Amino acid sequence: MSQAAAEARRRVVIVGAGFGGLSAAKRLAKTPLDVTVVDQHNYHLFQPLLYQVATASLSAADIASPIRGILRNADNVKVILATVSGVDVARREVLAEGRRITFDDLIIATGAEHAYFGNEWAEFLPGLKTVDDATYIRRRILLAFEHAETEPDADERRRLLNFVVVGGGPTGVEMAGSIADLANRALASNFRVIDPRTARVILVEAAPRLLTLFDPPLSEAARRSLEQLGVEVRLRAGVTGCDGGGVSIGAERIEARTVIWAAGVKATPAAEWLGAEHDRAGRVKVEPDLSVPRHPNVFVIGDAALMLGANGKPMPGDAGVAKQQGKYVAKLLIARDKSKTFPPFRYRHLGSIAAVGRKSAIVQIHWLKLSGLPGWLVWSVAHIYYLIGFRNRAIVAMNWVWNYLTLQRGTRLITGVTGSRDMTGCVPLPAAVKVDGAVLPCAADPDARAQ
Amino acid sequence: MSQAAAEARRRVVIVGAGFGGLSAAKRLAKTPLDVTVVDQHNYHLFQPLLYQVATASLSAADIASPIRGILRNADNVKVILATVSGVDVARREVLAEGRRITFDDLIIATGAEHAYFGNEWAEFLPGLKTVDDATYIRRRILLAFEHAETEPDADERRRLLNFVVVGGGPTGVEMAGSIADLANRALASNFRVIDPRTARVILVEAAPRLLTLFDPPLSEAARRSLEQLGVEVRLRAGVTGCDGGGVSIGAERIEARTVIWAAGVKATPAAEWLGAEHDRAGRVKVEPDLSVPRHPNVFVIGDAALMLGANGKPMPGDAGVAKQQGKYVAKLLIARDKSKTFPPFRYRHLGSIAAVGRKSAIVQIHWLKLSGLPGWLVWSVAHIYYLIGFRNRAIVAMNWVWNYLTLQRGTRLITGVTGSRDMTGCVPLPAAVKVDGAVLPCAADPDARAQ
Repeated sequence: MSQAAAEARRRVVIVGAGFGGLSAAKRLAKTPLDVTVVDQHNYHLFQPLLYQVATASLSAADIASPIRGILRNADNVKVILATVSGVDVARREVLAEGRRITFDDLIIATGAEHAYFGNEWAEFLPGLKTVDDATYIRRRILLAFEHAETEPDADERRRLLNFVVVGGGPTGVEMAGSIADLANRALASNFRVIDPRTARVILVEAAPRLLTLFDPPLSEAARRSLEQLGVEVRLRAGVTGCDGGGVSIGAERIEARTVIWAAGVKATPAAEWLGAEHDRAGRVKVEPDLSVPRHPNVFVIGDAALMLGANGKPMPGDAGVAKQQGKYVAKLLIARDKSKTFPPFRYRHLGSIAAVGRKSAIVQIHWLKLSGLPGWLVWSVAHIYYLIGFRNRAIVAMNWVWNYLTLQRGTRLITGVTGSRDMTGCVPLPAAVKVDGAVLPCAADPDARAQ
Repeated sequence: MSQAAAEARRRVVIVGAGFGGLSAAKRLAKTPLDVTVVDQHNYHLFQPLLYQVATASLSAADIASPIRGILRNADNVKVILATVSGVDVARREVLAEGRRITFDDLIIATGAEHAYFGNEWAEFLPGLKTVDDATYIRRRILLAFEHAETEPDADERRRLLNFVVVGGGPTGVEMAGSIADLANRALASNFRVIDPRTARVILVEAAPRLLTLFDPPLSEAARRSLEQLGVEVRLRAGVTGCDGGGVSIGAERIEARTVIWAAGVKATPAAEWLGAEHDRAGRVKVEPDLSVPRHPNVFVIGDAALMLGANGKPMPGDAGVAKQQGKYVAKLLIARDKSKTFPPFRYRHLGSIAAVGRKSAIVQIHWLKLSGLPGWLVWSVAHIYYLIGFRNRAIVAMNWVWNYLTLQRGTRLITGVTGSRDMTGCVPLPAAVKVDGAVLPCAADPDARAQ
């Protein structure tokens, strides 16, 4: 292809190679469009399984795949590793680490990040959004057991063996089940002083039930499964205070050295970049074709976008929505490139699914509702199928079979530290944090969730 | 077992759970001795494959196994995660993070670490000894390609695509071959601006041949294999100067943003802890039973020990020596516990082996000398066999088969950074560094090597 031909092509820039961005890029591969994908990581992450990295069942590489590798055969797609800091809408340029990347069409697929923490807290109390978050949480959990093993003080030992997970959405439920499983099975015979099975895992949720995306009977099934695993489920329990030694729920105090925040995500600063209208969680309000009002060539998809579903509620912040939206915008751009019109986006809801411990999951696909082991079988097949790249699929499957048969977890590595000093000065939870400029008390607030 | 019985047992403390320490601990499992293993990491690392983590072929979890998991069935063995800072020989106590761990017998198996760098350099230019080192080197290598892809200046692009490995021992040879392979195959079709196959990999060695542990014809075979992979091998080439932009070999200057130091290891500070006699590389001179002179209850094994072999030369710093020594001391302690005498240590040399790229290795086992593909087959079988734990063995085997068939590398993740900013301020190599208190110029010095 000549230089002139390349310059005549429409330039599509995609910011973010999560489910939405990657699905757009794949659909645009081998088309006459000139595509550039910009991401701050060199890999696409299969986020639904990130909790298994945080709880030592999988390695990061098992659920992440280099973006360049995925798109290596798409000659019209360039990949740039860079952090985007803004968009110059007037000049049609994306600003990334001092570079300006020119676009004709822009797709913003930057997803969500954890809210409730000012930047100064992100270092200490990350939510579970990135590989580094997961490695950090794994380190915290495993070090808590290591410290308990050598801790002479009984009160501190109990505090070290208490784990609080705040937020009863899919991530919170999966984390709580997985920590309980780690303590009760994988670590059971590994210590000489403590008995890991005495660890308490407490799941705190402000709403009257878990997993509000699902029908009430499935929420109830999930609660029962968690309780069978030994998780203490606290419903209608808003966290009213928190520090390095535990959390408060009204008058009650739960002592715990490890508190994991699985409540409250907000969209990345796409709205700010565009100067666009957004909701409280930072999601950009989009037109029926996912474009930004008054900017027909700028699209926002996935967790960064706010679009109402047929039921009048915002579409959930899950992989399914993001993938369908990415593919939709890609098709729309292909149609536009051929000067054709294209109908508005329509979301097809495929179903909801959440794992609850080692061999239990809840599944809701239209009329089909499963829980327990049948749910888990559907969950396993679905997740292996959706993992990108055969290699990952096969290795994850093998890991699961191995963990299932042996109750062992092979990836229990504490990296990034020398000795056991990482957690000695225990990190306090913030008493209050800034969200969108407003100072909020450190409490679970179900309204602020992006799902 | 009653408290009194436990107290009557001899307390053996093992510092370090590498090949030597772990082999002692396993031999002492289920004996009447009371064993404590102290390590600064919670995992045992299969170091011979660490270069594959550094070059994105394997995940850390593939070659590391939690120490507690390995020893979970040994009820008489405790594991403590802590950094040891000294030994109080008179009071028979190991000092670790403010704790004092009492011993009757002590086994020090703390291995080697990279020399040539004062502490202030370790952060920027780690040798390849730990999982975090490997992750860091992987990040450097992969980011160099990423930066080259977006670098407008041709000179800087060339500098980014030059990789210098200093040191022609097994680690240097394996690293150089593996980087060449990464550039020529795995990354080949992944970039749009640069062609990764134009990357230069230069292996610099001060001695007249590579891999001096092997017979000269095998060294020559290794050199030929490396050159077939595209590695430029520079023999009799001492590095006389180095900075962030490259290295000097006499009057010649090689421009390179990535320089990997695989020359020169020294023993950990065991000699200092014990006030014991040691050689220039810091290795403790030991008696024929591996005890420290005048301290019959303190043993030093593996890379931290200096023992002359039958040929009058120091035994090599490899896994085979460490394992045999660990097992020997364990047996000696068991014999002593029964008031029996035990003969001095005798090393049985099993052979030497080194990989050279993707399907070539050299092997020397007594009269058997192999190179090329036959060598690689022996190398693969040996490494898979020695990897601890079935899970790792199977997953590593699968990864290798997969990499072999597809030329892909699945673990090419750049972690620990956001965007591409990690390497922008290029890290200068030290002009001179302190070793054992003496200031040495930054040059490869074959005498200083512990192997």
